Amino acid sequence: MIDCTFYLNYLYSTITDYSVFTNYHYHLLATTTEALTESEKGSLILAGVLLSLVIIYFASKLGGEICARINLPPVLGELVGGVVIGVSALGLLVFPEGGTNASDSLIINFLEQTANLPPEAAESIFKSQSEVISLLSELGVIILLFEIGLESDLKELIRVGPQAAVVAVVGVVVPFASGTAGLIYIFNTPAIPAIFAGAALTATSIGITAKVLAEINRLTSKEGQIIIGAAVLDDILGIVVLAVVASLVKTGEIQVINVVYLIISAGAFLIGAIVIGRLLSPFFVELVNKMQTRGELLITALIFAASLSYIATVIQLEAILGAFAAGLILAETEKRKELEEQVIPVADVAVPIFFVCVGAKTDLGVLNPTIPANREGLIIAAFLIVVAIIGKVIAGFAVFGQGDLNKLAIGVGMIPRGEVGLVFAGVGASSGALSESTDAAIIMMVILTTFVAPPFLRLVFQEPKSSLTTANSTQEIAGQPTSTSESQNE
Amino acid sequence: MIDCTFYLNYLYSTITDYSVFTNYHYHLLATTTEALTESEKGSLILAGVLLSLVIIYFASKLGGEICARINLPPVLGELVGGVVIGVSALGLLVFPEGGTNASDSLIINFLEQTANLPPEAAESIFKSQSEVISLLSELGVIILLFEIGLESDLKELIRVGPQAAVVAVVGVVVPFASGTAGLIYIFNTPAIPAIFAGAALTATSIGITAKVLAEINRLTSKEGQIIIGAAVLDDILGIVVLAVVASLVKTGEIQVINVVYLIISAGAFLIGAIVIGRLLSPFFVELVNKMQTRGELLITALIFAASLSYIATVIQLEAILGAFAAGLILAETEKRKELEEQVIPVADVAVPIFFVCVGAKTDLGVLNPTIPANREGLIIAAFLIVVAIIGKVIAGFAVFGQGDLNKLAIGVGMIPRGEVGLVFAGVGASSGALSESTDAAIIMMVILTTFVAPPFLRLVFQEPKSSLTTANSTQEIAGQPTSTSESQNE
Repeated sequence: MIDCTFYLNYLYSTITDYSVFTNYHYHLLATTTEALTESEKGSLILAGVLLSLVIIYFASKLGGEICARINLPPVLGELVGGVVIGVSALGLLVFPEGGTNASDSLIINFLEQTANLPPEAAESIFKSQSEVISLLSELGVIILLFEIGLESDLKELIRVGPQAAVVAVVGVVVPFASGTAGLIYIFNTPAIPAIFAGAALTATSIGITAKVLAEINRLTSKEGQIIIGAAVLDDILGIVVLAVVASLVKTGEIQVINVVYLIISAGAFLIGAIVIGRLLSPFFVELVNKMQTRGELLITALIFAASLSYIATVIQLEAILGAFAAGLILAETEKRKELEEQVIPVADVAVPIFFVCVGAKTDLGVLNPTIPANREGLIIAAFLIVVAIIGKVIAGFAVFGQGDLNKLAIGVGMIPRGEVGLVFAGVGASSGALSESTDAAIIMMVILTTFVAPPFLRLVFQEPKSSLTTANSTQEIAGQPTSTSESQNE
Repeated sequence: MIDCTFYLNYLYSTITDYSVFTNYHYHLLATTTEALTESEKGSLILAGVLLSLVIIYFASKLGGEICARINLPPVLGELVGGVVIGVSALGLLVFPEGGTNASDSLIINFLEQTANLPPEAAESIFKSQSEVISLLSELGVIILLFEIGLESDLKELIRVGPQAAVVAVVGVVVPFASGTAGLIYIFNTPAIPAIFAGAALTATSIGITAKVLAEINRLTSKEGQIIIGAAVLDDILGIVVLAVVASLVKTGEIQVINVVYLIISAGAFLIGAIVIGRLLSPFFVELVNKMQTRGELLITALIFAASLSYIATVIQLEAILGAFAAGLILAETEKRKELEEQVIPVADVAVPIFFVCVGAKTDLGVLNPTIPANREGLIIAAFLIVVAIIGKVIAGFAVFGQGDLNKLAIGVGMIPRGEVGLVFAGVGASSGALSESTDAAIIMMVILTTFVAPPFLRLVFQEPKSSLTTANSTQEIAGQPTSTSESQNE
């Protein structure tokens, strides 16, 4: 491949030396300073997206394979792979939201050198390419949640509903209240940023935990179902909290009626979608059985999932909640197994884009303690991390009922904030509610809870077995027995 | 579903009545006239893309299923489905390239009504949503060509190489020369638009023909391989022709050295990729066998395909040529069957976006003979269609060798111009080389050759069998025996 690229680049440079000029609109201009036509722009965006996908897939597989070999979940490897190629390290995949511009993007530089991207068009191509990759990553998390819904057991989820609700409420209230109070009374943070930072501690990242649970075959366990159920409820509560806080930033007052209506719409959506979906699912099966063309099951299922995602977006919830609901509903049909098999390759293609992008968008530079400006943020971050972890562990122990439940595992499963936490940091930064150091502290909290949760989760789920043989449980992270981890990678 | 939407919309309007204001950045502003933040824009773009996908998939399945039932190829149904939802009819899915703006897009209107898209942001959301859907459609045709490459037999393709080359060269020269000469001498068209329109007659649309051939199980027949081989060569020749013509438009002279270098780079790419790829494919298999994480085969194959597509784009060829080469190379490995199975669901999801978008972007309004301005274009179009069909049929009969070859079928297989022809029309329009009526004539030629080829292709491939029983072969289109068509839809 390298030889081939070199040869072709050589050939290409020879061509440009002879000032070959081609205006073929699917292709690139060799020498021009004129404005690009729409079609030339399209071609350059496609080239940028192809290059981004090569880098994203390469990073995801390299990171995933390394993590699989050192007994960490592959999804952590995909995240770290994203960090390595992202704004923190190599700068291969950067996004304009992070304040970077085209000259920071190695992909754009590479396009300028290989694909004759004119420098004056770089900024606009960079913006479009980033927009497309961000959207592919959002479609990735939608497919991920659809797959998770498909693999979940709705009857079990309803059965764990009350327990999940307790975990969710405690897991929102404890970190929110203690985080906000701590910032105000210990760090003298003004009320609004303190409330915002406290709110950022609430929402669990369902994606990361669910993937780890699937990898260790605990998704359908009682604990797994409570975690997923609580994370779903958590998301809804988190949205309400953020809506309220953001409205507080704008108006200076909390309107109780808004909160009530937001809670009602979220609950009505999930329950309504599931109830109506279950009534309609026999027609879905009948329709699919009557169809004759290729992809009849998968496409019909995706129409359903995309519709619910759209409705969820429209009623101010998250699109992923709609996809999750669609997966839950279709999991109840006789098509479940066939659909699961067909979704796997699609998820394999779409989901890594999401995890790598989350990593790539995270700037680990704010962790650097040698820069004085980071120190205030570091101390606040340390406080937030402690509250984030302890708050969710307490939530796990708040679960009532069966004594044989692994309550620690439930709490640990709620620790990662991941993409949802990053959403909070993003809103805080763009609304101007947060100081730079508080924003940095939230991002650090998100990174650490996300990176720390997967190994902890594997550890605590092993506890019942391994506590008999191993006294010091922290040693296990470094040297987990290979027997359990071999089977974790499908 | 309808009930659910109504209920949720009702609920939603109740919420907005109470002036609920939420600034949650993953979600939509209920009432604001301020500029949207990046994240609000992202959320609206995602909503627009989800809605577009619902409509695209719905149109593709509805069209496909109807065509399957009336014994037409499903791909034709996807195209027609696209036309129905596109700029020609319903205006659900329109693109800014067609000169339409946000107010013409029913999706954007729907977003304004349901997702509180502020009217002043409509244009920018429309542009971004269209950009993403166009790019998904380009990724769709890349996946399609990768799948076609994977299903092709390289050894057979090399064996038919010389015959394919004859078909390709004759199929480029005859329509080009007769089209250009006819326009200049019969219609008094100026030289440059005449040459441009002649050039637009050259390139075969490999996608549509290959899909039809696959549907009637003739992709691996001798004729099928010659058609695909010739279409691939045709594409390369078409690119050279368009590059030369476009350069002629700009400079007024053809530089022979440019043509030579473009031909060399195209040939070197395909042969180089295949030779080097075959040397490297054992390492590919070895690498995949050593990997432990999910999607190891599919992602590694896609890294390879995206890399070759990028290289093809960079050396001014088409990305789809790189994807096709990657498919050809990986088809030679022992992983072929497993990879084919995993690519199918991904293709099912990605490819319909391409075919529906081709249909949606085509404005059938230029066919309306009641508008006087269309009449000149209609006459020129009729001439171009005749030249386009006869030129390719002659190319089919130019094939030497075996007397038992279905030469008519080869010629008919080369008829559709499809997406490639639309690329020519787009370049012509944006470079200003074509008058509106000539541009419209080219689009009409593209539409008719594309729509006419699939039923003709099925007809001529049945000929040997059905000519024994049916005297009037045109009757067969309307009433094909169901026995053969039932098995054509996988």
